[in-house]
Amino acid sequence: VKRIVDYSLYLVTDRDLSLGRPIEQVVESAVRGGVTVVQLREKNCSTREYIELAKRVLSILKPMNIPLIINDRVDVALAVGADGVHIGQSDMPYKEARRIMGEDAIIGLSVETFEQAIEAETLDADYLGVSAIFSTPTKTDIANEWGLDGLRKLRAQSRHVLIGIGGINPTNAKAVMEAGADGLAVVSAICSTPDPEQVSRQLSTIIKTELKERKRL
Amino acid sequence: VKRIVDYSLYLVTDRDLSLGRPIEQVVESAVRGGVTVVQLREKNCSTREYIELAKRVLSILKPMNIPLIINDRVDVALAVGADGVHIGQSDMPYKEARRIMGEDAIIGLSVETFEQAIEAETLDADYLGVSAIFSTPTKTDIANEWGLDGLRKLRAQSRHVLIGIGGINPTNAKAVMEAGADGLAVVSAICSTPDPEQVSRQLSTIIKTELKERKRL
Repeated sequence: VKRIVDYSLYLVTDRDLSLGRPIEQVVESAVRGGVTVVQLREKNCSTREYIELAKRVLSILKPMNIPLIINDRVDVALAVGADGVHIGQSDMPYKEARRIMGEDAIIGLSVETFEQAIEAETLDADYLGVSAIFSTPTKTDIANEWGLDGLRKLRAQSRHVLIGIGGINPTNAKAVMEAGADGLAVVSAICSTPDPEQVSRQLSTIIKTELKERKRL
Repeated sequence: VKRIVDYSLYLVTDRDLSLGRPIEQVVESAVRGGVTVVQLREKNCSTREYIELAKRVLSILKPMNIPLIINDRVDVALAVGADGVHIGQSDMPYKEARRIMGEDAIIGLSVETFEQAIEAETLDADYLGVSAIFSTPTKTDIANEWGLDGLRKLRAQSRHVLIGIGGINPTNAKAVMEAGADGLAVVSAICSTPDPEQVSRQLSTIIKTELKERKRL
């Protein structure tokens, strides 16, 4: 049975942006502050290193019942027993990932254009990563900047859980939620701050306030 | 049920060493010349590109009943339905790969030192890639050069199918077989020659002659 996941504050790790700290340290701090789901994203390491790192992060998250999602690598997710994978447009095609991972796995999909988002409507993806909401130094290869207007339009047309990513931080988090995001994914705002716990708590409060407001309406 | 595989002439692809030709072209030529198994090895491409290339190569090999083995990436092997994976010492640990791929998959393991080879005796690997027999410009990160003496010693102690790799070409192929290899893996001798079919045929003849001789004794 598929677990119910709180996608509201979604940390995406980046070793290079973590001020030299181990990923595990950033993750531990961030979950204390209220991060609800963690995606491990590694691009330049061996399969074995990726697996070893994923096992260490999983051992932090599992006791807290916070899901671990692996970027791109279905093999790493299967090897460590992660909760799912996040796939971009140059990763494994969604249908093959679903077939391999099974019905109960979490599979999220990055959508960088409206066309990709419409195509994703036919898929049973668990969420869409709407990338990038704002342009950001983290990802220089982005095809598109959705902006708040783009997100609002997508919200009106998509049946999926929408997670905004790209340039999100405490100063604009409320606006992204108001534009229709179900959750916010954050890289540098949490990884690159001296106190990930504190920024996570700030973001968590903004999100919870907005979700409460939404329920009231 | 696990298929019976002829590992005697084992091509490992290398896009960068293929004189600008597509991998598919080298593979087609090489199998015409007698290559019995193909390992697709890609290091610097996206998961999607790796999958697409693997599908194209599989469509060449499948009608000829020649197995396709994927280097490192269990996810790519599962996505395309390849026959197996080849894993090195910095790839997924063998036991995890076996668990994910299942009993019937081919799983080969690189051993670079005697210590690694002894450790591999406890595993049900389908073959060991004994790497590198001779030092070679293809792999600059090798931990050890086995040489013919090293291979001979390993042959005396290992129960596994042993495939020599590293610097093997028609001038030294007979010597490597005589030192106890069950098959020869080749990268640049086939990928970097203008006529892969012709070199493959040369190597195939040398190997078959030696295997016939071995049976006679």
